[in-house]
Amino acid sequence: MNYILKDENALYYECGYSSDNALYLKCGSEAYFVTDARYRVEAQEKVRGAKVITTTDLIKSVQKVMKRNKLRKVLFDPKEWSVAAFEKLSVKNCIVFKPMQDFSHKKRIIKSDAELKILSKAAKFGKNAFKILEKEFNHSGFGEDEYGLTYVAKSILSDFGKYDLSFDPIVAINKSAAKPHALPTKSRLRKGDLLLVDAGLKYKRYCSDRTRTVSAKKGFHFDTNQHFKSKKIERAYDAVLKAHDNAIVKARSGMKAKKVDALTRDIISKAGFGRYYVHSTGHGVGLDIHEMPYISSRSDTIIEDGMVYTIEPGIYLPGEFGIRIEDMVAMVNGKAVVL
Amino acid sequence: MNYILKDENALYYECGYSSDNALYLKCGSEAYFVTDARYRVEAQEKVRGAKVITTTDLIKSVQKVMKRNKLRKVLFDPKEWSVAAFEKLSVKNCIVFKPMQDFSHKKRIIKSDAELKILSKAAKFGKNAFKILEKEFNHSGFGEDEYGLTYVAKSILSDFGKYDLSFDPIVAINKSAAKPHALPTKSRLRKGDLLLVDAGLKYKRYCSDRTRTVSAKKGFHFDTNQHFKSKKIERAYDAVLKAHDNAIVKARSGMKAKKVDALTRDIISKAGFGRYYVHSTGHGVGLDIHEMPYISSRSDTIIEDGMVYTIEPGIYLPGEFGIRIEDMVAMVNGKAVVL
Repeated sequence: MNYILKDENALYYECGYSSDNALYLKCGSEAYFVTDARYRVEAQEKVRGAKVITTTDLIKSVQKVMKRNKLRKVLFDPKEWSVAAFEKLSVKNCIVFKPMQDFSHKKRIIKSDAELKILSKAAKFGKNAFKILEKEFNHSGFGEDEYGLTYVAKSILSDFGKYDLSFDPIVAINKSAAKPHALPTKSRLRKGDLLLVDAGLKYKRYCSDRTRTVSAKKGFHFDTNQHFKSKKIERAYDAVLKAHDNAIVKARSGMKAKKVDALTRDIISKAGFGRYYVHSTGHGVGLDIHEMPYISSRSDTIIEDGMVYTIEPGIYLPGEFGIRIEDMVAMVNGKAVVL
Repeated sequence: MNYILKDENALYYECGYSSDNALYLKCGSEAYFVTDARYRVEAQEKVRGAKVITTTDLIKSVQKVMKRNKLRKVLFDPKEWSVAAFEKLSVKNCIVFKPMQDFSHKKRIIKSDAELKILSKAAKFGKNAFKILEKEFNHSGFGEDEYGLTYVAKSILSDFGKYDLSFDPIVAINKSAAKPHALPTKSRLRKGDLLLVDAGLKYKRYCSDRTRTVSAKKGFHFDTNQHFKSKKIERAYDAVLKAHDNAIVKARSGMKAKKVDALTRDIISKAGFGRYYVHSTGHGVGLDIHEMPYISSRSDTIIEDGMVYTIEPGIYLPGEFGIRIEDMVAMVNGKAVVL
């Protein structure tokens, strides 16, 4: 099977290295890593199992290799290629390019033991960062606005620049938390506010992902033992937590992903908040922060041992508040283990 | 002229707002901004001159609008669309999608007075950040590794989270600087090291971009008055500075971009470092950090008043050192003015 890849994480998965201007071509038993001269030294040191070619025109060089190897059919991922780049790749040759959507993500859906170890460590570091963050927020977070708090979260999650982040952290107060993809605002943290933090870091390129929603009293912890003055918030929080715990306890290898989704959705619906649960239960996590399996109400993917994904039910009341509790789980011996 | 845009900065340029999941469709005198429900409120507040549509399926909604308006021909940028997304857009309808590469970048190549003001301010803030950074590095940078120094650069450039960055800053010591796109390493800053910093911030979404290479003696400044112990480095530095200054003094509106490129390249070649000048002289800067005009040896683009681009010659000796000096210029009354 011949295939060509373009995405950085897809490349890294194949050969242990990537650069922001590179292609990976697999022709039968041979493989080629094609990049430009800026990355020659690193690529030659780090690429495993592929021949490194440096060039000023990646696509032309790949075409030459395909011609020399007399390739007739090559798989590609139509999400990875722009219309312009694919036009250049596919024009003027007699190769059939066969689209295979999510080609690399499909290969990566079951994690190896080595990957599970790294992901577990990433999650541990992520969890530890929340511990440090709660200390910092208790110490000097009150009175700061979401911009400032987000900056502190970035600093601590990255251990002051040592780690990359999985994504820009979300730090949202009260009604800001009602937007699932909240950008910072100028609202300031006051004692007793609802505070949602969704953040993750990368360890050896693998992502962590974690969300906690807390009642930010003096001395608060980013745990799930929270009590809110507002009865409505309290009811919503309890529903989200119950949904979250239910999915973790009851998810099984062999289930369809939509069944796992139902493990959170049914509880939130029964609590009367169904229409405010506006996203799916979770997503796979690995080299990409969002990958397979997707734990949604429409997914027929069969959950299997070795998959790693988030359980992150949420309830969002526009203009009022939002709640989300998220952990990463790995499927081990048929069950979900929290990382 | 009908056209469809997808890129965030392209959208912002058209209507003053963008979201990470949106399309912009111009049909004759009408325009539509199509996004999902998460962005409804913000879009309705901020989009200028276009009707806001929120939907769960952007492409389907756009197709409906195109059908209702009986469009026959729509321009699109083949760089903006993945093969998969374009397939979905263009299948099952009788519209001709005409590729127009760099459609938005071409519209944006000449900056308006308002844009020039913003870019000039962005550059000023960027320059000021280098001032603060030199203080910080002199105070506590020695002994720190490139990870730590990069983190400090990020913190200061972003004014501790207030500004977005144009790109992840490059902070490279000695031989690290020989890689034009260096990633941080564990090498630590010692007195007298060569230190290269390439960094920029965004002001009102417009980018700044600046590089200085210095001899990091105690009390050093990020200016161009540098002296190195090594004669080879000193020779290379002088060639880069002379090339940089030559292009700024001699660039003229009406010149081809490749002529501007030659203003730096000829000097570096004459100094005997031609083969170590592995990139082009510069690139346009605006909403994107890399846009038109590209100042390369192959570019026939005519330089005009209102263009903003970088002059950033460099010399890179693999395993030894790298030097780059970069400023942003705007073409005003036929000449290059440093921003």
